[in-house]
Amino acid sequence: MRDLTITSVTDAVIEQMGNTADPRLKQVMESLVRHMHAFARDVNLTPEEWLKAIGFLTNVGQTCTPVRQEFILLSDVLGFSALVNLLHDKTAVELGTESSLLGPFYQQNAPLLSLGDTIAAHSTGPEVVLYGQVTDKAGVPLPNALIQVWQTDSEGAYDVQKFDGAQMDMRGNFNADAEGRFHFRTLKPLGYSIPLDGPVGNLIRAQGRHGCRPAHIHFLISAPGYRELVTALYLGDDQYIDSDTVFGVSTPLVTLARADDPAAPIQGIPAIRYDFRLGIAGSGETGRVGADPAQILANVA
Amino acid sequence: MRDLTITSVTDAVIEQMGNTADPRLKQVMESLVRHMHAFARDVNLTPEEWLKAIGFLTNVGQTCTPVRQEFILLSDVLGFSALVNLLHDKTAVELGTESSLLGPFYQQNAPLLSLGDTIAAHSTGPEVVLYGQVTDKAGVPLPNALIQVWQTDSEGAYDVQKFDGAQMDMRGNFNADAEGRFHFRTLKPLGYSIPLDGPVGNLIRAQGRHGCRPAHIHFLISAPGYRELVTALYLGDDQYIDSDTVFGVSTPLVTLARADDPAAPIQGIPAIRYDFRLGIAGSGETGRVGADPAQILANVA
Repeated sequence: MRDLTITSVTDAVIEQMGNTADPRLKQVMESLVRHMHAFARDVNLTPEEWLKAIGFLTNVGQTCTPVRQEFILLSDVLGFSALVNLLHDKTAVELGTESSLLGPFYQQNAPLLSLGDTIAAHSTGPEVVLYGQVTDKAGVPLPNALIQVWQTDSEGAYDVQKFDGAQMDMRGNFNADAEGRFHFRTLKPLGYSIPLDGPVGNLIRAQGRHGCRPAHIHFLISAPGYRELVTALYLGDDQYIDSDTVFGVSTPLVTLARADDPAAPIQGIPAIRYDFRLGIAGSGETGRVGADPAQILANVA
Repeated sequence: MRDLTITSVTDAVIEQMGNTADPRLKQVMESLVRHMHAFARDVNLTPEEWLKAIGFLTNVGQTCTPVRQEFILLSDVLGFSALVNLLHDKTAVELGTESSLLGPFYQQNAPLLSLGDTIAAHSTGPEVVLYGQVTDKAGVPLPNALIQVWQTDSEGAYDVQKFDGAQMDMRGNFNADAEGRFHFRTLKPLGYSIPLDGPVGNLIRAQGRHGCRPAHIHFLISAPGYRELVTALYLGDDQYIDSDTVFGVSTPLVTLARADDPAAPIQGIPAIRYDFRLGIAGSGETGRVGADPAQILANVA
């Protein structure tokens, strides 16, 4: 009879998992058990505390619906989604501009606009011009690039939230010019709070956190023969830029609107410049988890 | 702007949790984040794998009902419940015999029987005699001890499962004699499989595990002025004694029926001897998590 102690119980679990047919599942579960057990030992977790945690996790699972994924939200606020994405981006750096998640607010049939147009069809607010160039990894322009963009309005709402899907706003598609360049007008987006009416909201409050994300603008950029780029730009002057509650902000994706940019194609309003680099098609996938808790649905549903 | 890397993201999360009002919650969550992040880095967890895990955890949460706790079952099969109990037992050793969980199959109004009676009111099967002595920590007999016992029958079923609550079987209460001694007849219990029809069952199958628990007998022992002892004895010759799928077996609680025990108060059938030691009342609690997945309800409900 094996004597189970606070250390040998870990080996006993791993031994019992020894027949796992899938070698990757075996590796992942072994590591998970070692780290979770080390956690319990480190904090000397009590049965009462663990039962509370069991109740919390059960509540998280039961808060999930076809249109809400509370477990990804939990993963997001613990920085776990961001970490998994960062681990993945180690290879993505080789592939071009960093990626971000597509999210549930992307729509395929957004209006095709002309360079210089505004994507603000209905909303009003402080304007900015966004411009840049789409190239390959080496900086060679991609004249056939299609730029799809979508974002919240100046009050932090997406059109599907604001108009219940009845009309599109704050989104549009643009064809780059012969040098891969693009520019368009938009409104300065506003950040927003993650859903705080579930168990994760209770945790956020218990931790004294604001629960907000900084403002950002989504992009989906494609060109024939190149890897489709799904990403987002974050506004560096947002009050939450250094404390994104889901840790989705990535330095290379932080931008700032400049009031005095002589190179901006439209003058008189602040300008954001960002150049996107696309990798070769088939050179790797960079699908991401979570980050924007509103973006969970596209992943799990 | 802070630059989030696969290591600095961990510090960023902990910094954002810095305002947690409850110091214990702060400590536990910090350690959890450090260990979970280390896990993701160690196995280089991919977004696709994490999304699968999110789906699994959601399924676990949604499998929970008022009469089923799949998260404790998950905790059990990962050895986490056993570990949390073992951490707790470090202090329990000072308190007397090791404890185990009460479970949902305990009933308060079991029949009071006389020493030497059998607890098998309706079931049949191979008989054993169980005997021993109830003392304090120093070995001083407790003549007023009440011994409450309950177990599965020889086919692995509790009476509430077998008779739908209509009649009691395989349970009884005994008063110890003037020297704290007790003995009674019973049937050799059989082990059983944990519920395998949910997501945890899928994991158990993927890991090539049998999913079974070894046979055991529950005890609740009390005496005026002493700490109530909730525990269970495991049968050392059970085929699953070294591979309990929930790691609930504790060496000090493993027993063996001897065919040739000259000290046994009833001869002709195998005998199990076990002496119980009770701590002083108020000397500490030893409530336990899980271990027997059928025992989860008493904890969480």
